[in-house]
Amino acid sequence: MVDPSDVERAAARIAPFATRTPVMRSRTLDAWAGARVVVKGEHLQRTGSFKYRGATNAVQSLDESAAARGVAAHSSGNHAAALATAAATRGIRAYVVMPRHASEAKKAAAARAGAEIVLCDDTMEARRDVLAGVVHRTGAVEIHPFDDERVIAGAGTAAYELLAHEPELDVLVVPIGGGGLASPTCLAAAALAPHVRVIGVSPSDRATTVADGLRAGCSERTNAILDARGVERVTVYEAAVVAAMRTVWQRTKQVIEPSAAVAFAGVRALALGDATAGVIASGGNVDLDALPWVEPLSDP
Amino acid sequence: MVDPSDVERAAARIAPFATRTPVMRSRTLDAWAGARVVVKGEHLQRTGSFKYRGATNAVQSLDESAAARGVAAHSSGNHAAALATAAATRGIRAYVVMPRHASEAKKAAAARAGAEIVLCDDTMEARRDVLAGVVHRTGAVEIHPFDDERVIAGAGTAAYELLAHEPELDVLVVPIGGGGLASPTCLAAAALAPHVRVIGVSPSDRATTVADGLRAGCSERTNAILDARGVERVTVYEAAVVAAMRTVWQRTKQVIEPSAAVAFAGVRALALGDATAGVIASGGNVDLDALPWVEPLSDP
Repeated sequence: MVDPSDVERAAARIAPFATRTPVMRSRTLDAWAGARVVVKGEHLQRTGSFKYRGATNAVQSLDESAAARGVAAHSSGNHAAALATAAATRGIRAYVVMPRHASEAKKAAAARAGAEIVLCDDTMEARRDVLAGVVHRTGAVEIHPFDDERVIAGAGTAAYELLAHEPELDVLVVPIGGGGLASPTCLAAAALAPHVRVIGVSPSDRATTVADGLRAGCSERTNAILDARGVERVTVYEAAVVAAMRTVWQRTKQVIEPSAAVAFAGVRALALGDATAGVIASGGNVDLDALPWVEPLSDP
Repeated sequence: MVDPSDVERAAARIAPFATRTPVMRSRTLDAWAGARVVVKGEHLQRTGSFKYRGATNAVQSLDESAAARGVAAHSSGNHAAALATAAATRGIRAYVVMPRHASEAKKAAAARAGAEIVLCDDTMEARRDVLAGVVHRTGAVEIHPFDDERVIAGAGTAAYELLAHEPELDVLVVPIGGGGLASPTCLAAAALAPHVRVIGVSPSDRATTVADGLRAGCSERTNAILDARGVERVTVYEAAVVAAMRTVWQRTKQVIEPSAAVAFAGVRALALGDATAGVIASGGNVDLDALPWVEPLSDP
């Protein structure tokens, strides 16, 4: 099982490659949230999400012979560009299996980073099968988006940096889907600030949520960490997620994606009062043509 | 005439009240712009624009008896909330004359800051007449959005901070409408870095531009400063402004308003190559329901 010390080692390993993202305050955001809010800006991380931390820790952990074979993953989201860029930074190959109907922006981001894109049907089975074929053919090392100890340890460095920067936090609030951010946040808190409550926020209907990064469920591995550390869980409605996203854009001028907005909706719902809440803005990759508060254009 | 030393004095005067906004870099933005770009983030200034600097310098410059009568202005834009907040910070009254059809968001922002809003018809004549009535009735001191020495000196502190932070700049690129940012940027450059070129970028069709903060023309006062310091001028088409705004949102995750995007469109058009360009992101107040790249919803 991943250990708090793995997060500390990951922090040292990825430091030369990842952005030490800023910690931000906003008095108008505090007023809206009903608490003191400290934002860790992972939307400003390379590739626009915290996923770059885990991907980089995994890629930089490989020994030379494994690295020479490249890395592979299936992803329709932020892990694709994160892994592609982490691989390019080490000068190794990345193979990314993406559903044929993934957004062109996501495909282009992975391709720009130099990944070899392999398209597949849009079922989890097709994704797994095609990825298995790629791994068989190339010998590449599979790097799962969250169910991987190296990825988990790397993702924990976001909370680790935030806690090191803000020792006065009472609560850490993170979005929770597969547990790839929430579980390592628990580990980082265990390492640096065991008294801090960790609260995972998820959309009330995971299957249809606008927060596309949170549609996965936790794995045994991430669940075990969350249970061991006693994460608290709250859910928020879609309307609250959309309102939170809009409010963060309007008041802080920061573009955060719907999955990140889930954490902000959670901190407002919790109404923490005098507490100081660290919120991890997990990513900022948004389709600017399809904002959830603007009615979509009808197909021509 | 305003002098470079007025900007230096303004910097000291507003320091306790204004945000020392961050200076930002982005490698993907550099690639898009074809130059090294250093962004001064005035969209993160209080009230969401550089206008707070000028309004604060003006309000804080008033002697006690003038301050006691309050301040007044007509504005359909960022000056309204800036003046209202600057006045509230000093604990004095603000009267803001706004066209009846100004956006509800703009009216609400000024009202939230405690201003007394006076609505008028949407002609420049009506705005001037109603403002004259307010000044006559209350004795308030008129603070023009840009044609005012105290406002000009205060606005110059944005470029002043940027030049102090980044002594290696070759060029300063700012949007230009009434000259309220461009003219004091020339003064700041004269004070700190006389070798730096100052380039003012304006929309090619001022009357109809999406950059609503730049529809005014320069005054004699601002023009005199611009001419004395030899500002260079370029214009950009609407499509380039919209594309620049979208690119900045997408790549830097920063919400900038169309008037700020004009400067980014300019820096890309200039293709400065090896030069380091300081770009002042003048504001971030955007109507999120009416983005220029999304077709507007038809009226019901």
